Amino acid sequence: MKTINVGILGFGTVGSGTAEVLQQHAKTVLQKTDLAICIKTIADIQIDQLPEMFSKTKLTKHVDDIFDDPKIDIVVELIGGLEPAKTFILKAIEAGKHVVTANKALLSIHGKEIFEAAAQKGVEVGFEASVGGGIPVIKSLKEGLVANRINSIMGIMNGTANYILSQMTDFGLPFDDVLEDAKQKGYAEADPTYDVEGIDTAHKLVILMIMAYGINIQLDDVSTEGISQIKPIDIDFAKQFGCRIKLLAIAQNNGDHFEARVHPTMVPDDHLLASVNGSYNAIQFNGDMVGNVLLYGKGAGKLPTGSAVAADVVDIARNIAFECVNRVPSLSYLPQYIKDCQITPMDKICCPYYFRITAMDEPGVLAQIAGILGKNNISIESVIQKKRHDSESVPIVILTHRAMENDVEVALGEIDGLKICTGKTVKIRILE
Amino acid sequence: MKTINVGILGFGTVGSGTAEVLQQHAKTVLQKTDLAICIKTIADIQIDQLPEMFSKTKLTKHVDDIFDDPKIDIVVELIGGLEPAKTFILKAIEAGKHVVTANKALLSIHGKEIFEAAAQKGVEVGFEASVGGGIPVIKSLKEGLVANRINSIMGIMNGTANYILSQMTDFGLPFDDVLEDAKQKGYAEADPTYDVEGIDTAHKLVILMIMAYGINIQLDDVSTEGISQIKPIDIDFAKQFGCRIKLLAIAQNNGDHFEARVHPTMVPDDHLLASVNGSYNAIQFNGDMVGNVLLYGKGAGKLPTGSAVAADVVDIARNIAFECVNRVPSLSYLPQYIKDCQITPMDKICCPYYFRITAMDEPGVLAQIAGILGKNNISIESVIQKKRHDSESVPIVILTHRAMENDVEVALGEIDGLKICTGKTVKIRILE
Repeated sequence: MKTINVGILGFGTVGSGTAEVLQQHAKTVLQKTDLAICIKTIADIQIDQLPEMFSKTKLTKHVDDIFDDPKIDIVVELIGGLEPAKTFILKAIEAGKHVVTANKALLSIHGKEIFEAAAQKGVEVGFEASVGGGIPVIKSLKEGLVANRINSIMGIMNGTANYILSQMTDFGLPFDDVLEDAKQKGYAEADPTYDVEGIDTAHKLVILMIMAYGINIQLDDVSTEGISQIKPIDIDFAKQFGCRIKLLAIAQNNGDHFEARVHPTMVPDDHLLASVNGSYNAIQFNGDMVGNVLLYGKGAGKLPTGSAVAADVVDIARNIAFECVNRVPSLSYLPQYIKDCQITPMDKICCPYYFRITAMDEPGVLAQIAGILGKNNISIESVIQKKRHDSESVPIVILTHRAMENDVEVALGEIDGLKICTGKTVKIRILE
Repeated sequence: MKTINVGILGFGTVGSGTAEVLQQHAKTVLQKTDLAICIKTIADIQIDQLPEMFSKTKLTKHVDDIFDDPKIDIVVELIGGLEPAKTFILKAIEAGKHVVTANKALLSIHGKEIFEAAAQKGVEVGFEASVGGGIPVIKSLKEGLVANRINSIMGIMNGTANYILSQMTDFGLPFDDVLEDAKQKGYAEADPTYDVEGIDTAHKLVILMIMAYGINIQLDDVSTEGISQIKPIDIDFAKQFGCRIKLLAIAQNNGDHFEARVHPTMVPDDHLLASVNGSYNAIQFNGDMVGNVLLYGKGAGKLPTGSAVAADVVDIARNIAFECVNRVPSLSYLPQYIKDCQITPMDKICCPYYFRITAMDEPGVLAQIAGILGKNNISIESVIQKKRHDSESVPIVILTHRAMENDVEVALGEIDGLKICTGKTVKIRILE
């Protein structure tokens, strides 16, 4: 039996969850690996005492106690955010430690620097917990689907946004009310921008795309649109068309160029992603050999995320014990094969669309709108024109066949310029 | 770059699929592993020529050409069935080859012997493709959920049975008609017994339970009931109660004993498993740390299964290259920690039930039935009593709260013995 010593940076939600998972299942892990995983030191400037179950673990406020300890093999960074997390990770690598992190923001922005430093030092960087919380999505992609060309990635990767959309759908409530409620219940952070505006989802998509396609891709390459503009009326119309609105991350491998986008999407009820509710996440890969594979589970939370971090720790511990570090390259492809790529501009993507046009309830309105759409190569699949009740404006809802985003933008510009149109048209992309 | 040589036994559906996956994605795999996976020899007594893409591969009718070739590192067994597959696998192990197989029947019956032989020779046995086709379910369980106590396993693990139930549900057709159609379309085998009677599903559950719980469990320990007795009328009633009937494998970790069963189950519509249709499979693990994780994908088929076999080949190839064979124990737990276990007898399991009782349409019938149920500790959740049309017998459908199987058996014995009952009561367990 060999002992592998772990140092944990940050004893917040995920940090304490990880420690709990490793501690509670030390025996399980031992029976599977013949390794004793020992949490030797935890660094956190905000706490003065560890829970009793960690009586053998040293608590420190000085991260150097971890970096300078030659007995520590693996450093687990669970502080989150860009700094000081980045500096700490680079210090750990410099000290020859393997690193495990759940920090998607950091990896999607400074990943290149971190992975290069790790490669130079011959240490590993594990980041299973950075996408999909407890779901073994990264291991499945890197190893389970190793002999596939990944055609597409599609997923619900942010629990907060999915919780809000689920509540809006189930109870017909407006976004602001649900968000407020989610904040009070601890499901949304005080500043929920990253979650509701799709930025967190974009971070995760970047990480998956690098591994799925072996490409250099930056956060800026991902076209990102959040859910704060989604209205209950659009959720209602979606239902009438047999769909649910979900915040999806979508990547598409078009051979010489790649689509990378995050936006609210109408998902048909019979698609499994439509049934992913509340704070759950699900990620679907389409591989040329395996077809569709979907992985579902808790995308966040203390213990689920801790479970994924612990899996990385065990993985690296096995590699240390068997002297096979970097047996699987961190980013799936070996660094020399990761290539630059072309991103499909957003105005070139094609999909069916939902439009909610706000217009005066006058004869001939639909004819004018249909004319503009037709002129711009957009063909209509179905229309719902609501009767006037108390206002003079009515919603005209149109589902289109597959159209190009550029044509849509031009057409909606013209439509919104019509005198009879009294509000900005709402556009939601539909999953094919 | 190191070359790893593979020999394949059997060039049927999965054998040719595996060869195709490995051949087509040789470059992808090389870019991820720096390894050249070479299909050196294929043994099949039924074919005389390989497709052109395998021009560098030797075809033989003599398996010993593979076992005796010192250059072959990994033997892939895709013949299926118990013999000669078992003999061949043991020969390959004896010759010091690593083995990859998709043979769930063999592993669930003779696994102990095979894994012991492999341990003695220090070679690996990979079997990702034996459960869930292309879905990386075994890797996820063994590695992704390594630091969890698995509370339960629940899944749709047979595509043929699921296809038949889906067709019966969608088109209201009887079992026999759908089966006949499935045979003609190649979705069901000439002898579909293993698939429709739950035996294939039981094979897979045995494999998962060994790894999830570290227990010795035999095929006989699994209580197995198939779908051939399911009638369209039961599927219809299930719909009325907001459920779908699925053939589920269920394992439950009750601490000192384990439930292991395969049977048709009424699954509530809002459960993800209810949305798994056609030939797809899905497996859900509940881990004490991670919560529910569900994995979904194609449970069979040439290329999806080939994708899983190829993943095992690559996994073992990496271990050969890094000299870390058996880095992850074949059965998840190290052999010395795999223990005997107690299986919960079927009459001790508890769940809600659906009963379809066939009785004369006379006053007081329900009172008699309700009396018997009450006396046997079975409480009723809801009742549908159909009006008489042309026959004198009517179906009385009852959903119960949680009851014990033993009480149910006693009660149904009494009910079926009533003079007013004119047919055997149908009983279907309901997913909680």
